[in-house]
Amino acid sequence: MSVNLPLPIASELKPVAGLRLGHAHAGIRKANRKDVLVLELAEGSSVAGVFTKNRFCAAPVSICREHLKSGLPIRALVVNTGNANAGTGEPGYQHALRTCDELAQLMGLKREQVLPFSTGVILEPLPVDKLVAALPSAIANLESDNWFNAAESIMTTDTQPKAASVQIMIAGQAITLTGISKGAGMIHPNMATMLGYVATDAKVSQDLLQALTAEAADVSFNSITIDGDTSTNDSFIVMATGVSGVEVPASGEVYELFRQALIQLSQTLAQMIVRDGEGATKFITIQIEGGKTNDECKQVAEAIAHSPLVKTAFFASDPNLGRILAAIGYAGIVDLDVNHVQLWLDDVWVAKNGGRHPDYKEEDGQAVMKKSEIVVRAHLGRGEASQTIWTCDLSHEYVSINADYRS
Amino acid sequence: MSVNLPLPIASELKPVAGLRLGHAHAGIRKANRKDVLVLELAEGSSVAGVFTKNRFCAAPVSICREHLKSGLPIRALVVNTGNANAGTGEPGYQHALRTCDELAQLMGLKREQVLPFSTGVILEPLPVDKLVAALPSAIANLESDNWFNAAESIMTTDTQPKAASVQIMIAGQAITLTGISKGAGMIHPNMATMLGYVATDAKVSQDLLQALTAEAADVSFNSITIDGDTSTNDSFIVMATGVSGVEVPASGEVYELFRQALIQLSQTLAQMIVRDGEGATKFITIQIEGGKTNDECKQVAEAIAHSPLVKTAFFASDPNLGRILAAIGYAGIVDLDVNHVQLWLDDVWVAKNGGRHPDYKEEDGQAVMKKSEIVVRAHLGRGEASQTIWTCDLSHEYVSINADYRS
Repeated sequence: MSVNLPLPIASELKPVAGLRLGHAHAGIRKANRKDVLVLELAEGSSVAGVFTKNRFCAAPVSICREHLKSGLPIRALVVNTGNANAGTGEPGYQHALRTCDELAQLMGLKREQVLPFSTGVILEPLPVDKLVAALPSAIANLESDNWFNAAESIMTTDTQPKAASVQIMIAGQAITLTGISKGAGMIHPNMATMLGYVATDAKVSQDLLQALTAEAADVSFNSITIDGDTSTNDSFIVMATGVSGVEVPASGEVYELFRQALIQLSQTLAQMIVRDGEGATKFITIQIEGGKTNDECKQVAEAIAHSPLVKTAFFASDPNLGRILAAIGYAGIVDLDVNHVQLWLDDVWVAKNGGRHPDYKEEDGQAVMKKSEIVVRAHLGRGEASQTIWTCDLSHEYVSINADYRS
Repeated sequence: MSVNLPLPIASELKPVAGLRLGHAHAGIRKANRKDVLVLELAEGSSVAGVFTKNRFCAAPVSICREHLKSGLPIRALVVNTGNANAGTGEPGYQHALRTCDELAQLMGLKREQVLPFSTGVILEPLPVDKLVAALPSAIANLESDNWFNAAESIMTTDTQPKAASVQIMIAGQAITLTGISKGAGMIHPNMATMLGYVATDAKVSQDLLQALTAEAADVSFNSITIDGDTSTNDSFIVMATGVSGVEVPASGEVYELFRQALIQLSQTLAQMIVRDGEGATKFITIQIEGGKTNDECKQVAEAIAHSPLVKTAFFASDPNLGRILAAIGYAGIVDLDVNHVQLWLDDVWVAKNGGRHPDYKEEDGQAVMKKSEIVVRAHLGRGEASQTIWTCDLSHEYVSINADYRS
């Protein structure tokens, strides 16, 4: 079950000059499954990343942070599914290092030039021998037009691969941005983790790329939620090979064009995760306006998005909208004056100045609730800040998937 | 469905001298249902209260706060079910005031001597005429041994009434504490709200009673969670009639005895709410130890208790314990060193120093997960603080109840 999520068409996923992708079947958790992905980057590439804030971050996340800080250029990424290598202590850390070592040796690199990623069961030892044994076969099929297979090889309980491309014209030259994503926060139980990889052939300095990656992550992968759980392994990586020769400056028109393209692609990839949220039947956009700060707007948006009562009401198409007001009320803005709060469901004005709008009719709310894509918009009447996040409903299938998965 | 929740036996609910309870059928939302409760307090009673922090607090909650501050002694409480009188703006406020006025007039009191409470649908006008019309019949059956009926008359989607009594001996004299509760935070969808009322015939000064009420609420009603939603109407009231003539001093042995009895009764009433949580099949105690502060322990306990992934794992009896570690990791303690974290499930040591305990066997975890009452205990290795909260699992029935309730 997914909500308006198109299957990517392999031929529409544009290769990114300077990047090749190879996959393998390592049999880490299940046999006959693409479960290893290797990405090879051309010399001169910049790589930036944003990672989970979970204190129980997985060993590969710690190593990614260290390798990105090492100063050596990153030239390869390796991703495995089936095991998160999280909650595995020192042995897990050594397993992730060994993975980097083996891949570095096969590709003629140093250990610090490899970034490792894992997604899957927490608290179980990584079968590192199987992973290492599969690396040569992944390297053997490195190709630049391998994005569809790459998207498939990072899937866990995703119902379908997630990938997209955009192209922009800079000084008459086409610049490509292509990306893949998987998972949905911790929504995919043991097979946890949200991963996102975006590559471009533009040339972007390391510092600028890191700033753009952080900004894009904030309004995309950090603005979606399914169940409020934060994985131990969440990672979002942006790679700029520079092979096109077109440089993105730190400001101006070209900068703005590239920035918008990166944000748009990141949002598309992030929203795909919500559309494929476990048991999702509705795609919900929550826009909070009129806050004093963006942070407090996000706080309110998340309170609504995390409320099991709001989520089950969406599942039931029940315009039980007092639940949304209640969530706004307990979101933690201690000086919120509810008499200034307005609430809309799509274009239907539900609550005016903190109470039911006199013209609101339940059948109008009902009509919106029946749609598969719904916008909840609230105005707090406190300032000029705003924030948008995306979420899905909470259905019987969510409970089934998460209760039955490992048993 | 409820977890080891005994039906209270009417004859075991001890009357509290100086307090009488009367109920009525007002037909507020459904016909032929006890939906109004009036409590009458003897002259000289002290009354203390703790209320929801939700900014969308209901009109009756605002009025309770005002009347408790007025300085006039509280002599009556009135509770209705079927409508929360929340999100109702100025008309809702006037409705609640009128309820106080009418009851005050019938009982020869001032408006400020009455506390009003409502629980039920949010965002719909209170049918105040029906409520007011039922007050004389509630007054007509005021009795001191009416606790069982009182517990029934504040039920909404509760599967059964919740009530308990304790007695303590002070200087050879029996002091009684009897209480009732309903609901489970916002778990009961539109029929929201957690209410708790405890009465004693001990004599307790206003200031001391307020301090004891706040402390008891913290370790009882504020330490339970079903779905993390906070109602617009939550209220916990403690009443001391003083009719026994036995005074509770501000310190010493008698103080300690009374304090413990109040905490124990409050915890029992609060835990009954969890045991009757919507769709609950497991009763989970979460003990977090070794924190720097009680607040950070509670933060971690709540992260575990609110995680839909943890809750569905309990429902499935699946020892998917990485989910608990992940929740500890994202609870928001930014300097948490996970290498010092220990985790037990009942007596089974699951994670040692942040990783899977070498002796941990899945079948041992499985054996605990199959029980209906489970203790999750984590030690953070940071200090001496600790905190305990209670919660339940997340089942298919939770989704059914909340998705189907209004439709």
